[in-house]
Amino acid sequence: MSQVVGVFDSGIGGLTVLAALRRQLPRESFVYFGDTARVPYGTKSVVTVRRYSRQNTAFLRRFNPKLIVVACNTATAAGLDVVSEEAGVPVVGVIEPGARRAAACSRGRPTGIIGTEATIASRSYFRAIRAIDGRAEMWEKACPLFVPMVEEGRTADDPLVRAAIAEYLEPMRGRVASLVLGCTHYPLLKPALSEYLGPDVTLVDSAEEVAREVAARLDSDGLAEPSDAAGTMHCYVSDNPDRFRVIGERFLMAPLRSVMLVEPEDFFVAEPPALPRETA
Amino acid sequence: MSQVVGVFDSGIGGLTVLAALRRQLPRESFVYFGDTARVPYGTKSVVTVRRYSRQNTAFLRRFNPKLIVVACNTATAAGLDVVSEEAGVPVVGVIEPGARRAAACSRGRPTGIIGTEATIASRSYFRAIRAIDGRAEMWEKACPLFVPMVEEGRTADDPLVRAAIAEYLEPMRGRVASLVLGCTHYPLLKPALSEYLGPDVTLVDSAEEVAREVAARLDSDGLAEPSDAAGTMHCYVSDNPDRFRVIGERFLMAPLRSVMLVEPEDFFVAEPPALPRETA
Repeated sequence: MSQVVGVFDSGIGGLTVLAALRRQLPRESFVYFGDTARVPYGTKSVVTVRRYSRQNTAFLRRFNPKLIVVACNTATAAGLDVVSEEAGVPVVGVIEPGARRAAACSRGRPTGIIGTEATIASRSYFRAIRAIDGRAEMWEKACPLFVPMVEEGRTADDPLVRAAIAEYLEPMRGRVASLVLGCTHYPLLKPALSEYLGPDVTLVDSAEEVAREVAARLDSDGLAEPSDAAGTMHCYVSDNPDRFRVIGERFLMAPLRSVMLVEPEDFFVAEPPALPRETA
Repeated sequence: MSQVVGVFDSGIGGLTVLAALRRQLPRESFVYFGDTARVPYGTKSVVTVRRYSRQNTAFLRRFNPKLIVVACNTATAAGLDVVSEEAGVPVVGVIEPGARRAAACSRGRPTGIIGTEATIASRSYFRAIRAIDGRAEMWEKACPLFVPMVEEGRTADDPLVRAAIAEYLEPMRGRVASLVLGCTHYPLLKPALSEYLGPDVTLVDSAEEVAREVAARLDSDGLAEPSDAAGTMHCYVSDNPDRFRVIGERFLMAPLRSVMLVEPEDFFVAEPPALPRETA
């Protein structure tokens, strides 16, 4: 019997990772959990993000996944180790793959890193890139307005988006060779970021790197689905499935037909929720 | 023995209400709870905000309060009834007092109402004002960027704050006689809002109205502290006491010396946490 790949995020942003996974792995089936009752993680403490990550892992385990993707930079930074301990299966976070790609793109020039307050404070990208290249120079900046701007539906043309980008990134402009999009919401701002920084700056979107790593891992472990498999996707959220669906379609770049609400008790009961037959 | 007034909010914003309460009621002692592990409430569903409100009420009840203030517009809009059911003591929310003041200020002209997504979607201010004046006209607008802007420390001089105000409030400018600040973060934007809308527009800050209502209620119930009482304040949060203290002092306009972390288990155990002797 085929096994799913489990994916969790603090809310909606991880759908950009799910989109890349579905593109690169069309035969795999995915169960996505967005913790919309407690979103965002980016302003919370390490202790709390670790607790939430452990609970989300326990929820995904009930689907008997063959691999778990932590599709949230804050949760990867704060809790990848606890997820790995609890998962019992391979776990892929978003920071290592993004850091490898950033290091490969640097051409001896500094790397820019942007993310939530918690991700930047954790210095996880900084450390991961330094582990690859001990002399790497970096500019780091928390950009707390980007997430609410993206969730409000603002795009590259929006004057407030342009003004925020100019303010946050001014010190990096003309200096960095690449910019790590250290938050899963930020790929939606790619056109505006690219316009501001110029065409020579590589935008490193962890989603594509994560999908490559998951593909390689499934192949090497002999866990990839057979070539005749038809991938499915099921989404669960801890609050507000309607808001998730409406905003989420822009992140997934595909319809989100069925989004299921997980009651808080579901985190703690022993029986897994049944996968509905309809696939979203 | 004297009894405390309990106050809860989704996080930091309710400190603007606590500040008004302390100013108007210097002899009263307050226990404040900020639910920073689950903040914000403004993008969450009614069902979830009601569940959180019930849990917060249960936490405050363990201090045996004589009155509970719901110092959060979203929680008042979604859950004032459940708080009242569970509290066993009088409960004051932030919407009714603000609506009364707005109706009194309208001079036959439209009232502007701004708040979080959830507060505006609830139409609670609209209904409360219409209940007082059946012909009142209103302009309502959700302003999702104001909370993260205030929490980032941006003030009236900030170009992004000015641009956001101009975008959100343009339709109201020159039309409204008063503007209801339907979110406890917004009083920190008063100078910028007032500059944009002009000196003739009254900014209705629920905090002052709430404090007046609490004072009147304690007097009429014979529960006010005696004139020789020295008021105290104790703050509890469900996450990140350091971030709460640093950001919170701007909201309270006073030092926040001691902020205590409530572990999630504390929501469910029977024994109240002890009030420390040191007062903040």
